[in-house]
Amino acid sequence: MISKKMENMVANSSAIRAMFEEGNRLAKLYGAENVYDFSLGNPNVPAPSAVKKAIAELLEEEDSLVLHGYTNSNAGYEDVRQAVAESLNERFQTAFGAKNIVMTVGAAGGLNVILKTLLDPGDEVIVFAPYFGEYRSYVNNFDGIIVEISPNTKDFQPKLDEFAQKISPKTKAVIINTPNNPTGVVYSEETIQKLAAVMEEKQKEFGTDIYLISDEPYRELAYDGIEVPYLTKYYDNTIVGYSYSKSLSLPGERIGYLVIPDEVAESDTVISAAGVANRILGFVNAPTLQQKIVAKCLNEKTDITYYDKNRETLYNGLRDCGFECIKPQGAFYLFVKSPVEDEKSFCAAAKKYNILIVPGSSFGCPGYVRIAYCVAYETIINSLPKFRELAAEYSN
Amino acid sequence: MISKKMENMVANSSAIRAMFEEGNRLAKLYGAENVYDFSLGNPNVPAPSAVKKAIAELLEEEDSLVLHGYTNSNAGYEDVRQAVAESLNERFQTAFGAKNIVMTVGAAGGLNVILKTLLDPGDEVIVFAPYFGEYRSYVNNFDGIIVEISPNTKDFQPKLDEFAQKISPKTKAVIINTPNNPTGVVYSEETIQKLAAVMEEKQKEFGTDIYLISDEPYRELAYDGIEVPYLTKYYDNTIVGYSYSKSLSLPGERIGYLVIPDEVAESDTVISAAGVANRILGFVNAPTLQQKIVAKCLNEKTDITYYDKNRETLYNGLRDCGFECIKPQGAFYLFVKSPVEDEKSFCAAAKKYNILIVPGSSFGCPGYVRIAYCVAYETIINSLPKFRELAAEYSN
Repeated sequence: MISKKMENMVANSSAIRAMFEEGNRLAKLYGAENVYDFSLGNPNVPAPSAVKKAIAELLEEEDSLVLHGYTNSNAGYEDVRQAVAESLNERFQTAFGAKNIVMTVGAAGGLNVILKTLLDPGDEVIVFAPYFGEYRSYVNNFDGIIVEISPNTKDFQPKLDEFAQKISPKTKAVIINTPNNPTGVVYSEETIQKLAAVMEEKQKEFGTDIYLISDEPYRELAYDGIEVPYLTKYYDNTIVGYSYSKSLSLPGERIGYLVIPDEVAESDTVISAAGVANRILGFVNAPTLQQKIVAKCLNEKTDITYYDKNRETLYNGLRDCGFECIKPQGAFYLFVKSPVEDEKSFCAAAKKYNILIVPGSSFGCPGYVRIAYCVAYETIINSLPKFRELAAEYSN
Repeated sequence: MISKKMENMVANSSAIRAMFEEGNRLAKLYGAENVYDFSLGNPNVPAPSAVKKAIAELLEEEDSLVLHGYTNSNAGYEDVRQAVAESLNERFQTAFGAKNIVMTVGAAGGLNVILKTLLDPGDEVIVFAPYFGEYRSYVNNFDGIIVEISPNTKDFQPKLDEFAQKISPKTKAVIINTPNNPTGVVYSEETIQKLAAVMEEKQKEFGTDIYLISDEPYRELAYDGIEVPYLTKYYDNTIVGYSYSKSLSLPGERIGYLVIPDEVAESDTVISAAGVANRILGFVNAPTLQQKIVAKCLNEKTDITYYDKNRETLYNGLRDCGFECIKPQGAFYLFVKSPVEDEKSFCAAAKKYNILIVPGSSFGCPGYVRIAYCVAYETIINSLPKFRELAAEYSN
């Protein structure tokens, strides 16, 4: 009935849905306050008050036909793109113009747009495990092939030796995600420089263009003042995908952008094609009110101290229980080593304590679990005794 | 550099972009008030004031985390889907529940979601010329094959004899669009009944499911009290795609829905798959604020008297000039016979009078042109003497 591709997708999706339904079931049985649902990366810090103010202002200032109308370009409002470009230029000493910005339906929309733009069937896209599992679907949408680089569980920086071996004349793109989902690791400048060097060399060797797609929904969620290198400065064929989902807590509103710098090979063609892809994939344009909102809120920040407090408390708490985990430098995830090889059985054991966590297999990294700490602080405090009981099951 | 599929798409898109740029160029040269741009289907009636009110209320009533957060289901907020279902049930005596509604990023998003859900490579999708040209891209996105039924230029109802011949075991879906873009014609109940009968018969003959996809962005734009049949009542395997772009003048906000009735074969599977498709295509969910807005505005209507006045004035004016045209019963387009076979030369001639119109070839129907009358009334009044001069070029 449904397409064969979708049959597989639906089968795979049922695991996530099952977990979500399990959470609801447990909440009904035991009360929501006694369920420790760390499964979803859904921000729990409200949008900055400036968002509300921006909406109120826009309703007064803007003509309804402009505020809610089709944008002249599928890339979005010229003034919004100009404002985004200027904000990036100020922050990262780049030199983008409005034409380099394509407003998108979140980062997920942006990634689909750029993959549609670039991929021919059979083209390879390299990802570094652990990685956001949705990349598999996005690449599959355009009949590309995902090529995984195995995880470096020492510090979760990418394995560049394996990368250099697996990059091939069929490699069209490399996706990186830093700060990383699921590890919270920020790729160091040294990593980026080496990664870029490999890619430069391989482009020359193969006579191809290999695009570095930087998926950056967590850019603003970086702790302890750590710097997240801006990728376009290290490698010419870099395309950035951004989202305001986390930085302004607007995940449901579906607003983000792509940056396609002039330095990208044949950038005018790629920019035009991305606009067309935005249209024909059915996005048409990023939601217009949201475009205008983010343009008014470019200097706003989410309350990162909230996530930071959760991070410290949960990280230290889990370590005290004896769990092994690298301390995340960004995003809102902890990637914890499962005390047993089969991390799915560990997730099942956790569920007995009403703790919901996601197996690392979903991110191409079995043996680990992801704990999303974008939850109420109380949830963390109340979960720690449960984590201790859980840990006790495995100590002997 | 870019994918081969996209190379073709970009080439095709440049014609539309060229027209848009030509409009801007002419407006600069002669002043916007002296350019008669009938090229775009962009509503020019502002959103009802209830939209603004709804936004203000939502900002006060709703928690930011709910208003702007991910929806629990990729299909959208349960309460919004329930409200949409109830509204449809009241208007059309249907029996939909929340589960039958998938909120989408406009109708274009919805069509991509359902085509992704249904199409295997090589599956055929039938369209009746003239038809919205974007269908070609949407079907192509999933490697489907568009099969055109030639236009019936007598009354622009679909040619059902040719349809019965071309429908095949490979036909997975049939897309209809009534009120129609570009003709403004509403398919009669008789047409729908006959169309359904052909499809029923062919399903039995081939032992397949053939889905009728009803693309309905213009449902509420019907004049003279004409009834637009609700398709699910005539054929079980019907899926409706709707958009608030025209009915609430929110085209830029990207908000609409799919209806997947229980009567659809294996409807639960199709509904699940549509949710997954919504997610993996990068939409994730329809913009959340907009979901809540439309739920509050289900009984609101656009000011159809505005479009109706334009329709009457332009239709009568063009007929007075000697042009041939069927009187549209809905939408905001006139589909006018070109006085010469090559309608592109006619469009070029019109441009000399600063009149911008779209060749019928874009809709699979050469020899005709589309005139979008969703413009200021003054534009219509001022354009009529120009149309008269244009007509004079062709009278002899």
